[in-house]
Amino acid sequence: MSSTDLSSLSDGDVMSLDHTTEKPHDALSRHLADGMDAVNLLIRERMASEHAPRIPEVTAHLVEAGGKRLRPLMTLAAADLCGYTGPYAVHLAATVEFIHTATLLHDDVVDESAQRRGRPTANLLWDNKSSVLVGDYLFARSFQLMVETGRLRVLDILANASATISEGEVLQLTAAQDLRTDEGIYLKVVRGKTAALFAAATQVGGVISDAPEEHIQALFDYGDALGIAFQIVDDLLDYGGNSDATGKNIGDDFRERKLTLPVIKAVAQADEEERAFWKRTIEKGDQQDGDLEHALSLLAKHGAMDATRQDALGWVAKAKEALGTLPEHPVRQMLMDLADYVVDRIR
Amino acid sequence: MSSTDLSSLSDGDVMSLDHTTEKPHDALSRHLADGMDAVNLLIRERMASEHAPRIPEVTAHLVEAGGKRLRPLMTLAAADLCGYTGPYAVHLAATVEFIHTATLLHDDVVDESAQRRGRPTANLLWDNKSSVLVGDYLFARSFQLMVETGRLRVLDILANASATISEGEVLQLTAAQDLRTDEGIYLKVVRGKTAALFAAATQVGGVISDAPEEHIQALFDYGDALGIAFQIVDDLLDYGGNSDATGKNIGDDFRERKLTLPVIKAVAQADEEERAFWKRTIEKGDQQDGDLEHALSLLAKHGAMDATRQDALGWVAKAKEALGTLPEHPVRQMLMDLADYVVDRIR
Repeated sequence: MSSTDLSSLSDGDVMSLDHTTEKPHDALSRHLADGMDAVNLLIRERMASEHAPRIPEVTAHLVEAGGKRLRPLMTLAAADLCGYTGPYAVHLAATVEFIHTATLLHDDVVDESAQRRGRPTANLLWDNKSSVLVGDYLFARSFQLMVETGRLRVLDILANASATISEGEVLQLTAAQDLRTDEGIYLKVVRGKTAALFAAATQVGGVISDAPEEHIQALFDYGDALGIAFQIVDDLLDYGGNSDATGKNIGDDFRERKLTLPVIKAVAQADEEERAFWKRTIEKGDQQDGDLEHALSLLAKHGAMDATRQDALGWVAKAKEALGTLPEHPVRQMLMDLADYVVDRIR
Repeated sequence: MSSTDLSSLSDGDVMSLDHTTEKPHDALSRHLADGMDAVNLLIRERMASEHAPRIPEVTAHLVEAGGKRLRPLMTLAAADLCGYTGPYAVHLAATVEFIHTATLLHDDVVDESAQRRGRPTANLLWDNKSSVLVGDYLFARSFQLMVETGRLRVLDILANASATISEGEVLQLTAAQDLRTDEGIYLKVVRGKTAALFAAATQVGGVISDAPEEHIQALFDYGDALGIAFQIVDDLLDYGGNSDATGKNIGDDFRERKLTLPVIKAVAQADEEERAFWKRTIEKGDQQDGDLEHALSLLAKHGAMDATRQDALGWVAKAKEALGTLPEHPVRQMLMDLADYVVDRIR
C-alpha cells in the first residue's frame, strides 16, 4: 500500500495526445479556476517564514511540484455545489492542502522514501529534521487558517481528521506485516491514509456554506467512499496494473511486505500450506525467486483480485449514491465523473 | 542549547534532604492538586487509541516518566489567579502538555537523541516512525481538546504558539552553527524552543477566565520572560554549571557545536584570531584537546558569562514586573518564587 498521492491520477494520461475528452479533475479545475488561483496565492503567502527561509524552500519543493491539488479542489467544489460565495472556502482549501503536505513530509520520513512525484523527497534533499519540523509548521499554519474562518465546527472536523490520519498511519506500522490484519483493520488504515482527509475536505465545504445537515453528511460520505475506492484501486493495480500507466512495478507492495486488500482476501481463504507461504514472504520477509508469481497464482485461485475489484466498484457506487442526494448542479456531475474515473483503470 | 525540559528543574534537589523549604513548583502542585489530578486523568483518557495500541505505549513512556508537568501547572495557576472556576482550564492544561509531549517526540527524532529524562527515548525504544506519527496524533488530540472549550481565541493563541515553536526549531537548524547568529536570532530560537509555549500556557489561563485584557497580557509577558530566562540559565550552566546539580557535563553545547548566548557574546567581541578559533570549532566542528578550555578563557576574557547572567536576571525581573500588575493572590507569590528559583542556580 504505497502512500497514495491522488495528484498522480492522470500522470499516465497527461502525455498521451489521443485522449480528447477532458479528465474530471481538469474539468473541476477549469470550472473553479478563480478559486484555485486564490488558493495557490494563499498557500504561497502562508508558507512564507520571515525568520526561517528553510521553511518555504522545503514547502515549495513539494507544493510547487505540480500536484493536481485534488483535495483543495474538492473543498471548493463542495462549497460551490452548496452555493457558497463567501471568502473562506479558499482558506479551507489551503488548510486541506497544508495538512496533506504536512502528512507527505512526515510520510517520507516514516517510509524513508527517496522519491515523491518523480522528484527527490525533501528528506533526501535536506534532511529528516527539516521534513519533520516543516511538516509541524504547516500543520500549525493550517490551524491558523481555520481559526480565521471563525468556525469552531471546521476546527472540530479537521482536528478529528488529523487524529484519524495519524492513528491510521500508526496502525499501519503494526498491521502491514501481520497476517491477522483483516478487512476491518485494512479499512481503518485506508481511512487514515486517504479517506479521512477527503471526507473532511468535502464536508467542510458544506459546513462553511451553512448547507443542510443531510447535505453535509452526503458530502462527507462522498469523500470517504471516494478515498477508500481510490486506495483499493491503487492496491489492486499493484498486483495487476499496467506499469506504463501507473508508473509502478507489479509486486512492489509484495516486495515491501505490505498486506493489502487482495492479499488479505487470499489469506482469509488460505489452506495451511498457503498460510505458511504468506507467513514466510510477508511476515518474515524471506522472499525468493518465483514467490511473486506464486502469490499472483494464489490471488487468482481464490478470486481475490476480482473480489477486490468489486469492493472498489461498490465504494464508487456509494460515493455516487451520496452525491445523488444533493441538488442538481454542474459540479455535482463533475464529482460523479471523478468517482467513475477512479475505477476506470480497473474496469 | 539542549532541548529544555523544565521538569528537570529540581532533579538535583529532590534527593537532598537538607532542603527544608518547599520548591515553588512543588508549592504550586500542592495548591493545585485537585486540578492536576483532573489533568492527569484527562491526559490518560485522551492518549488512548482504540485501534492503535502503539500510541498509548509511546505516549505513556514519555507522559508517565515523571515530568513535573510545569506547563499545565502554569495554565491552572493562571486560571486560578484569575478566579476561574469552570471545567476548561483542565482541558487547556492537558492541551499544553500534549503539545509539549509532541514537540519532545519530534525533537528526539530531530536531535537523534538516545536519552530523555534519564530514560531511553521513544525513537530508540520503538523507531523514528512511531515518534513522528505519535507526535502528530498528540498534536491533533490537543486541537480536539481546545475545540471542546468552545473558545476560538484559545485555538488562535495555541496555533500561533505551535507555528512559533516549529519556526524556531527550523531556524535553529540553520542558525546553531552559523557565526552570524546574533542575539536577535538567538532570542527567536529561544522563544520557539521554550518561551512560546510557556507564554501561551499562562495566557490561555487568563483567556478562559475572561480576565481583563491587561491581565491576559501580563500573563503572556510572565510566561515569555520566564521561558527565556530558563533557557539562558540552561545555556549558561552548560559552560559553568555544577554537573552534579545539572546532570550535564560542562561544554556539551560546545562539543555539539551549538552557538548559545555566552558564545554569541564572545564572538561579537572577538578579534581576528579568536574569530578563526570559533569558526574552526563551531562552524567547521574541527575540535582538538584544549579547545574547550580555550573557549572558556575567551568567554571569561570578554565577560560573556557575566553578561549572560545579567540577561537572565533581567528577564526574571521582567517576569516579576509583569506579575506585579496582577491582583494579590497566593498563586501570584508562588509564580514570583518560581521566577526567582529559575535564576537561583546562577546567583
